[in-house]
Amino acid sequence: MLTTISGGNSIFTISGMSPENFPELPGVLSEDGITLTYADFKTMIRQTIFAVSITDLKPILTGVLFELNKEEGTVSAVAVDNFRLAIRKVPFVQVTGGFSKVVIPSRALNELLKILPDRDDETIEIHTSANFVSFRFEKVLMVSRLLEGEFLDYKAAIPKDYKFRVKVDVRDFEQVIERASLLANSTIISPIRCAFDFDHIDISTASNIGQFHDTVSCEPFSNKMVIGFNYKYMLAALNACDDEEIMIELQSNLAPIILKPLEREDYLFLVLPLRMKE
Amino acid sequence: MLTTISGGNSIFTISGMSPENFPELPGVLSEDGITLTYADFKTMIRQTIFAVSITDLKPILTGVLFELNKEEGTVSAVAVDNFRLAIRKVPFVQVTGGFSKVVIPSRALNELLKILPDRDDETIEIHTSANFVSFRFEKVLMVSRLLEGEFLDYKAAIPKDYKFRVKVDVRDFEQVIERASLLANSTIISPIRCAFDFDHIDISTASNIGQFHDTVSCEPFSNKMVIGFNYKYMLAALNACDDEEIMIELQSNLAPIILKPLEREDYLFLVLPLRMKE
Repeated sequence: MLTTISGGNSIFTISGMSPENFPELPGVLSEDGITLTYADFKTMIRQTIFAVSITDLKPILTGVLFELNKEEGTVSAVAVDNFRLAIRKVPFVQVTGGFSKVVIPSRALNELLKILPDRDDETIEIHTSANFVSFRFEKVLMVSRLLEGEFLDYKAAIPKDYKFRVKVDVRDFEQVIERASLLANSTIISPIRCAFDFDHIDISTASNIGQFHDTVSCEPFSNKMVIGFNYKYMLAALNACDDEEIMIELQSNLAPIILKPLEREDYLFLVLPLRMKE
Repeated sequence: MLTTISGGNSIFTISGMSPENFPELPGVLSEDGITLTYADFKTMIRQTIFAVSITDLKPILTGVLFELNKEEGTVSAVAVDNFRLAIRKVPFVQVTGGFSKVVIPSRALNELLKILPDRDDETIEIHTSANFVSFRFEKVLMVSRLLEGEFLDYKAAIPKDYKFRVKVDVRDFEQVIERASLLANSTIISPIRCAFDFDHIDISTASNIGQFHDTVSCEPFSNKMVIGFNYKYMLAALNACDDEEIMIELQSNLAPIILKPLEREDYLFLVLPLRMKE
């Protein structure tokens, strides 16, 4: 099994292998499927994939859950690790057979983000069988194994209620936290401290490098609370927000911090707080 | 010891240290020195530094030897590891005191390559004491420790004679060896095999990936010989040649391969051969 490539005086003879040894693509002949536009599919990946677990402790959490909400006409993407959660809902174009939910490895989704063309109105067909998922678009067929196991009961992790909520300018808040992160020490996590105080947020942090303090003004809200968090998780969530303004919902300084759009319900990011030293 | 930096609402307070704890620069007050143009100094570093030893087995060989040839009006830079050697001579502008030879850490020379300006006719002053070397140019003073120990007797490693020599086009030869290196396996060194054959060189190699063969024509020479070498060392040497043509001098297929310019003696690269399986 040799291939010869020659040009000028150069001759390469490359050893090959028998095509019979190439693994056969698993067929995904199931009728269970869902069709999405490129734009929606890309958005739901981009706005969740940052939150997948990167450790192999619970392999199922290294993937993104795709879950059908048939009555709503939507499908949700959900990613979660031990410290945060991201949900993004998009409308589906079509759903067939008994498609309900699957957990797709984040690596396959990352590859799709790279190879999906920019024609946002075109559609991608996703079909699932017991162990595999196929993606079909243009002349491409990509097949990936599904992750097996029980996904986290993520709905139970989302607080049902909040004590108060604050409208913030996403880029302002993001920039302040980025500045604060300059003082972060890579070996010890120094929490970012946010003091919500009726009409502004005092953001501060301290590490062995020094101290930082900044203030962001907000529309007046009804309460005050001091809460801490890991800047990496908050920055990743803010970075995934396409809106100019979002709502931050708070219940207590030990309860999850919720980020969501102002008047819609199409995404939700959750960041667990860090306990602050007093 | 705090520094406060503020702008807008942001306030950084950075911890500092007492300036008394900053180490004092070692003074290099010796009269022993040499002055070179930027252009010559850069050339002698660039054409030798690729050959310094990267292991710490013999720390002295991780540096470049600078050696005065007073009668010639030149200074040589010499770098050597267990498999190759590079020498580059340049004329000095001025020499003072008892400057004779020092071994300068390659790290300091690499830094100088980065920060020396492009004004090639300007000069850099190098002064040495027992343990330190200083470089003075424009408004910069850089001080480095010298490497201590006995440098390799590099002159003894250079063959005094050759059996025959071949004029080659540097870029042609380099490109063929680069192509051959595509088949190199990173775990096993596959030697590049050069069959010098009166008026051409047959270059070939084989690895578990495949085989390669190519031919470079040369002006007729008087002999034939098959010799092998590690492509990395040959490519590094060819890459450092600024000439279009060089002379390759061969003695036997177990003796060092010498590369030098056609009609000058200002540089010399040596690559040890690899023993070939027959």
